[in-house]
Amino acid sequence: MRPPAHSVELTQVMEWRNGAVHSLQDSLATEEPLEIRVDGAPVTVTMRTPGHDLELAAGFLLTEGIIEQREQLVAISTAAPDSSGKSNVVEAQLKDCEFEPKDLQRNFFAASSCGICGKSCIELIRNRRLRPPDRDFRIAPKVLCMLPEVLRTRQDIFDLTGGLHAAALFDAEGSLIAVREDIGRHNAVDKLVGWALLEGRVPLSRYVLLVSGRGGFEIVQKALAAGFPLLASVSAPSSLAVKLARELGLTVVGFLRGERFVVYSEASRCIPGSI
Amino acid sequence: MRPPAHSVELTQVMEWRNGAVHSLQDSLATEEPLEIRVDGAPVTVTMRTPGHDLELAAGFLLTEGIIEQREQLVAISTAAPDSSGKSNVVEAQLKDCEFEPKDLQRNFFAASSCGICGKSCIELIRNRRLRPPDRDFRIAPKVLCMLPEVLRTRQDIFDLTGGLHAAALFDAEGSLIAVREDIGRHNAVDKLVGWALLEGRVPLSRYVLLVSGRGGFEIVQKALAAGFPLLASVSAPSSLAVKLARELGLTVVGFLRGERFVVYSEASRCIPGSI
Repeated sequence: MRPPAHSVELTQVMEWRNGAVHSLQDSLATEEPLEIRVDGAPVTVTMRTPGHDLELAAGFLLTEGIIEQREQLVAISTAAPDSSGKSNVVEAQLKDCEFEPKDLQRNFFAASSCGICGKSCIELIRNRRLRPPDRDFRIAPKVLCMLPEVLRTRQDIFDLTGGLHAAALFDAEGSLIAVREDIGRHNAVDKLVGWALLEGRVPLSRYVLLVSGRGGFEIVQKALAAGFPLLASVSAPSSLAVKLARELGLTVVGFLRGERFVVYSEASRCIPGSI
Repeated sequence: MRPPAHSVELTQVMEWRNGAVHSLQDSLATEEPLEIRVDGAPVTVTMRTPGHDLELAAGFLLTEGIIEQREQLVAISTAAPDSSGKSNVVEAQLKDCEFEPKDLQRNFFAASSCGICGKSCIELIRNRRLRPPDRDFRIAPKVLCMLPEVLRTRQDIFDLTGGLHAAALFDAEGSLIAVREDIGRHNAVDKLVGWALLEGRVPLSRYVLLVSGRGGFEIVQKALAAGFPLLASVSAPSSLAVKLARELGLTVVGFLRGERFVVYSEASRCIPGSI
């Protein structure tokens, strides 16, 4: 699979190697801002790798709790391109939403009036009354161990640039359903979730989310909003990510490398016989 | 050097290895929100690893263009702790500043009215009229190649948790001056720059900034605001990071590994004889 042409930019660079200097052409992952508007009002600007912009915006709206289901998204489209022929604005029209454009930020500052802390962050997510992750989902440890290698063979832009995060959707048999890449880890997850939302596959209660980097609080929050039962990464989760996962019942797997992994919460989904 | 106690949290986890299951204690990098207030008004909330909070806030104020020099920072302190004994709020008092708390976001949306794009992002940074990076700074390629190994020996929390980003300050002779770690790459840079600001060392025109992860637009912007002449990383920069660096005269080095590196802009500072 070849990446979209505008996801990579070629540029001239110099390489120093053991004292020898070469001039060569290098591929850079494209980074450009994307503005997401809801009913005409700007909601956020994110630095992203162009490509799959509608999915990114749709996923953002879901994982940040602005919408809860596909039906609330009446229309989503890219704004007219500017003079350079590019468009970095996505416009969404929603219905049956109580969202106010300023709410994303206000939520945080509201929490802070009674002491801002990890607990108040978890409280904010709990108040969204997300559907609890599927209790019966199971994946075999040996299948789980295969996933990073499968993902690596499909990270197209990373191969070229060495500079991107990936998020991938697997089923319980280890089949890769979809992959998205982005310069921002949270954007890669939003693109993946947005794709699933637009395909009518959310909640993703029978799938694993694999991310290429760390699993922080933000990624756990997005995994919960999309309905995943299990979040896996090749690296370490944070303290707050683990606290949120334990409270809301998401399985978090870290250090998934070779024939080894560590489970931080809800081990029964991936370690037979554990509770 | 031992990391601050509250930077790491211990927790019980399960490890699966080649079919065998063990219960063990693991160290997690702490992630907690920090709210930064300016003259009483909340400006931002960032998810960070506790420790060096005043430096983080001071660095943020400088690298985001809210202040331009140490003298504008009249006072900076941690708010009274909450019932758990922790404080996740830093309060800064500024003088001679035209900053409005809502400006950070407004800046972006103002740019977008005439088409949001990489060019408008660079325009925003150019309008801050930053001091140009020191043209005469030089570092020998062999010295540059040694820096990642020196940093690795000093990444204390990473050693324990496997989950943190680091930012380090080196002089032209390769001496490590300071290191800061955080769950967020941008926070690690802000902590480092904030330390230098409070020490009266900004602009950092005779130093190298080494970051453990990618060099994106945001990191280049922060390096420029702190006055660094050279930003190095072990990974790849983004397209927009390179464009901004080229326009404003910062040297960007990527893939700094072993006896090899790639220079994306202003090569003369680290490759003798180049222009």
